[in-house]
This record gives sequence, structure tokens and C-alpha cells, in this order.
Amino acid sequence: MSEIDFWFSIGSTYTYLSVNRIAEVAKKENLSINWKPFSVRKIMMDMDNIPFTPPSKKVKSDYMWRDIERRAKFYGFEAKVPAPYPLKEFDLANQIAILGINEGWGVDYVTTTYKRWFQEGKEPATEPNLSEILTNLNLNKDEILKNANSEEIKSQYLQNTDNAYKLGVFGSPTFIYKGEVFWGDDRLEDCIKWINFQ
Amino acid sequence: MSEIDFWFSIGSTYTYLSVNRIAEVAKKENLSINWKPFSVRKIMMDMDNIPFTPPSKKVKSDYMWRDIERRAKFYGFEAKVPAPYPLKEFDLANQIAILGINEGWGVDYVTTTYKRWFQEGKEPATEPNLSEILTNLNLNKDEILKNANSEEIKSQYLQNTDNAYKLGVFGSPTFIYKGEVFWGDDRLEDCIKWINFQ
Repeated sequence: MSEIDFWFSIGSTYTYLSVNRIAEVAKKENLSINWKPFSVRKIMMDMDNIPFTPPSKKVKSDYMWRDIERRAKFYGFEAKVPAPYPLKEFDLANQIAILGINEGWGVDYVTTTYKRWFQEGKEPATEPNLSEILTNLNLNKDEILKNANSEEIKSQYLQNTDNAYKLGVFGSPTFIYKGEVFWGDDRLEDCIKWINFQ
Repeated sequence: MSEIDFWFSIGSTYTYLSVNRIAEVAKKENLSINWKPFSVRKIMMDMDNIPFTPPSKKVKSDYMWRDIERRAKFYGFEAKVPAPYPLKEFDLANQIAILGINEGWGVDYVTTTYKRWFQEGKEPATEPNLSEILTNLNLNKDEILKNANSEEIKSQYLQNTDNAYKLGVFGSPTFIYKGEVFWGDDRLEDCIKWINFQ
């Protein structure tokens, strides 16, 4: 079984496509996926890389939503676009993901968060959406918030982001197999080809 | 036979992949391709969209070359990277393409120009590369340069660029089928799926 590191930030739009299909792809291709939340926002700001923000990039952001909608359809699932963007609680959403991956409920949290964001228009890590998600996962919201905002989790988030940058990650999603970097949902298949090519 | 408008700028790196494979894809899929040169540089500058330029974006530009190299390999052809970039004679290279498409030798010129750029490291529209290409096409270099720099061709280049922008083009290559925009070499297959989907 080949291992792929799946670097992502909740807040990245295209990451919806990967989050929503990676379990099925992994099963089919016999892959093990390591879910690794980091701050793509910090890396992009460090690199002076301005994301899709209207109005100066309206043509590009309109295209992005249309492209995500079409690709979701090709994959066989739904994407209601535009989804709320950019996120108000970007860091919190990802710190909860880090805590969750440490504790074993992270993949469910991330998957549910993305489905609600792109299928129901519910913004990640905002209320009442967050409480509903945590309740469905049988988690205590106050405790989760306290832990997700702890110095330990913040430092792990920063460390993940530093590691990602050092590995050559500059966008979300990024797939890494034995040091080979594949950026973008549309490169997941390239990553798999690459593995089979070795 | 479905018609796709293929908007491109000589100077775009990823466009190499499309230029080098589109004839074969078109034949296989029974498509007619309209080659449409425009200035992606002008559109990107108008949109404050900074391309892959070192050093602030070295991680991203290193990735780009690696990605192009890998994708070329998957397609079954070669890409020697990094190729000379950015181009000194960006506009001239594209104005010659416009002239050539008007006169019937444009596709050969663009294809040869890209092959030499990405397989032999020869920069487009610089000497002695340009003279060699035009000689191989049985064209008179002085005449071509005069015509490619005429007000008529410059105005057609600008007009193409305006049209591209109005149609929602912001990058090269872009494929348009009946108003539906697909950006990137990796979206050519999406465009074909889209056509078959209608």
C-alpha cells in the first residue's frame, strides 16, 4: 500500500473536490492517505501570492466557481457555487482539523465541514454550523474550542505549515509521494500514475 | 465536427503541452481547432496577475517546470526544462503567429516554435532561431517581419486580446466551446467531456 501525504487547508475551494472523493480513490487504488492540515493562507501571503479575490480578479474567480461546479458534476457529486468565501474563521477551522486528526475524528470533521460548505452554503467554523458538526461527532464544543485554541495545537499548525513550505507546498490541495509534489485536485491522478510508473 | 477556439500566447509555458498534442487529440475526437493568438501578458498585467517570476515565487516556478516535464512524459513527448523564460520577444512571436494564421502557415510556425523552445532551448522570435524557422517554412524573413510589425497585425493582436478578455479568458491556453471556457492544458479533456455531455 502506497502512502500519500494529503496537504490541505480548509478554506481552499478546490480542496472540496479532493476531500469529497479521496476516500473512494484511495480504496480503489489501494492507497493510504495522511491528512495534513496547514495554512495555505500564510504561505500565499509569504509568497505575495494573492488568491482569487474580487473585484480585481472577478473574471478569474467567476471561472473558478464554474470550473469547480463542472468538475464536481464530472465526478458525480454536487457543488453549490459560489460557496461563502473567503472564510472568516480560516485558522480556527484548520486548528480543529489538526486536533481532530490527533484524536481520530479529523477526517470525518473535514469531510462533513466541506460537504456543508459546498452543498448547503454553511461556512466552516462559524455558528451554528460548527456546533452542529461537533454534536454529530459526539464532541463537546467548549472542550474542542479550548483545545483547538491551545498553544500546543497552534504550534503544531505552524509547524505543519513550515514543513509544508519546506517540502515545496504552495497551494491546497497538494499530494506528496516520496518527495514528489503534485499540486491541485486535478493532479491526484498524476500522482497515482507517478506511483505506478516507479 | 465540433469547433473549439484555442486561445493561446507564445510565451506561456503550459501552452507547449497543448500545442504539441492538440492536432492528435483533434483528429481522434473529430474536432476542428481555431488557433487564436492573443496577449496573455497584457490581460495578466491588466488584472494585476503576476506570473511565475523568480525569486519571490521560486518554489512555484520550480514546481511549474517539474510539472510540465512530468506531464510531457505522461503524454509521451519530451520537455527540456527550464526552457528560456520569460520571453524577450513575446509580442513579436505572437504577431508573427497572427500573420501566419491569416496566411495559412501559422499552425506550423507555432508548433515548430514551441518544439524548438521546449526541446532545443531556442527562444521564440530571437535570432538565429526565427530565421531558421521561417526558412524551413519557405518564407522571406524581412517580409514577414515587416508585415508582422504592421499596424494591421498589431491592431488584430490587440483586437484578439480584447475579444479574449470579453469572453472570459485570463490565461493561456484556454479552450472555448460555445461560450464555455476551459483554462489550462489539463482542461482540454474537460472541454471534450463537456462537448460529449451536451
